[in-house]
Amino acid sequence: METTITLKRTGAKMPLVGFGLWKVTKETCAATVYNAIKEGYRLFDGASDYGNEKEAGEGIARAIKDGLVKREDVWITSKLWNSYHEKERVLEGCKNSLALWGLEYFDLYLVHFPISIEYIDPKVKFPQEWWGVDGKTVTPIKVPYQETWTEIEKLVDAGLAKNIGMSNAQGSLIHDVMRYARIEPQVLQVELHPYLTQESLITYCKRLNIAITAYSSFGPQSYVEINCDKGAVSLLEHDTVGSIASKNGKTTAQVLLRWALQQGLAVIPKSNNHERLVQNLACTGFELTADEMKTISGLNINLRLNDPVDIHPSFAIFA
Amino acid sequence: METTITLKRTGAKMPLVGFGLWKVTKETCAATVYNAIKEGYRLFDGASDYGNEKEAGEGIARAIKDGLVKREDVWITSKLWNSYHEKERVLEGCKNSLALWGLEYFDLYLVHFPISIEYIDPKVKFPQEWWGVDGKTVTPIKVPYQETWTEIEKLVDAGLAKNIGMSNAQGSLIHDVMRYARIEPQVLQVELHPYLTQESLITYCKRLNIAITAYSSFGPQSYVEINCDKGAVSLLEHDTVGSIASKNGKTTAQVLLRWALQQGLAVIPKSNNHERLVQNLACTGFELTADEMKTISGLNINLRLNDPVDIHPSFAIFA
Repeated sequence: METTITLKRTGAKMPLVGFGLWKVTKETCAATVYNAIKEGYRLFDGASDYGNEKEAGEGIARAIKDGLVKREDVWITSKLWNSYHEKERVLEGCKNSLALWGLEYFDLYLVHFPISIEYIDPKVKFPQEWWGVDGKTVTPIKVPYQETWTEIEKLVDAGLAKNIGMSNAQGSLIHDVMRYARIEPQVLQVELHPYLTQESLITYCKRLNIAITAYSSFGPQSYVEINCDKGAVSLLEHDTVGSIASKNGKTTAQVLLRWALQQGLAVIPKSNNHERLVQNLACTGFELTADEMKTISGLNINLRLNDPVDIHPSFAIFA
Repeated sequence: METTITLKRTGAKMPLVGFGLWKVTKETCAATVYNAIKEGYRLFDGASDYGNEKEAGEGIARAIKDGLVKREDVWITSKLWNSYHEKERVLEGCKNSLALWGLEYFDLYLVHFPISIEYIDPKVKFPQEWWGVDGKTVTPIKVPYQETWTEIEKLVDAGLAKNIGMSNAQGSLIHDVMRYARIEPQVLQVELHPYLTQESLITYCKRLNIAITAYSSFGPQSYVEINCDKGAVSLLEHDTVGSIASKNGKTTAQVLLRWALQQGLAVIPKSNNHERLVQNLACTGFELTADEMKTISGLNINLRLNDPVDIHPSFAIFA
């Protein structure tokens, strides 16, 4: 099986299995990234919002210094935070992230959410997250997506981002972006797992030659520690997934990742456990049957775990 | 119960129960509109695409001439067709419709779909519908929604539309429009029935003070004659709806309309049958219990009957 997906505009080969940096603590991040490279990971999915770009960059730098990889062997994704959507802010947002990583360019740079909030100087509060300096108030501002996208395109011109894309977007917004984009989005990163299968979005993106990175492949699991699992049964412990895993001699995590890969999606599992980190990368060496794929997809309940409307009622970007 | 909903920006009172003109034939349209006015209908929901605006206008004119109503007593909604989305075309699209109706202004003017297709001169083909002059080829063009919306706003300035709104839009597109609108949408018209309950969209629009008009209140019924009912059981003949109707001494149609009204939605049933036309208007004189409401909402299967992706794969505005 292919281990990369070729992006149409640039011909760049994006690894299908990467390492997601959301909720990797600053303290462990450099070592985790370093070890992940050692184990074979070649894509790291970060974001300004994750607050660990400096440490992730240290892990990369050490791996390069030790001769494990060259810069061009690894794929680094980052994301523009919501507080940098104004046209005067986009370049700053990207440059801040590049400086933290210690990189000259990102392989992929995404607009994290189609939501714009008030700017906060990172010297005052970093990461800025959703809330103001008081840690409570959410202040939406009115920046149309086109304003941000037009600046994101200039990052490609400037060589700061090799590829650009969207995240957390529905079909209607993608459809609109396709009508004004000078440089079309190459990747869409969205929540996608057996509880939220999004078939029509997958079909649409394939047609548009937009690669999809599925995040939260394990479903509720990633949200337990932030009390946002919405009471759903863990997919990692789901009987249906479990029996398919047993039959294939794999872990449930491997089955969930494989289910995504077989649909042509890229995945970015995170693990703070070394053994699982290694296992997650080993999800390309087997094949689920059409019936198994169908059974897993049948778990769909349109359960969206990461919905910004839970933060502010005006952020109903999935309504 | 209120029979109108007050639109926030203008204070205009839009009737909650109106008459939908989709699929009313040219031959019967003038008489149907006239009779509907006689029976008490005060809102007519038309569109350039329905191809019967001239005849609907004749019905209105005759009712005014006969002293049944004055112009200001009736609410006329029309919609800009997809082939008039370019900035040079929006005014033309609206003026063409006004001329057909024989009206000076619309009470409400909507962007029919967030989809733009190649212009066809109405002298060559009318209504233009989705296809070119060959009746087969669909030719999408790249007009961002903002370009169209900016022109729609100017129709308000020019007095041609008292209120403006969107139709067939998801949350993310509405969220984006709210960030650039000089005149915010006052109404959203969307497919909404017990098979497609769209709770989060309702919540969002309420928060934004956008009134919702639910179309296709009877679900698959409207799509049977165009072979697009997608094999779903008719809601008008659904056992669950039927037993609630019996208990209340009402028709299933009345229960389905009432279910929408009790959620604060406006409805626009169509009927080519005089008796049903009268019955549909009589859906305000009773109340469903909270349990009955919940039971009906429990029929939701996210079944969308009117999805333009069925016409062209790039029209995935609901993905």
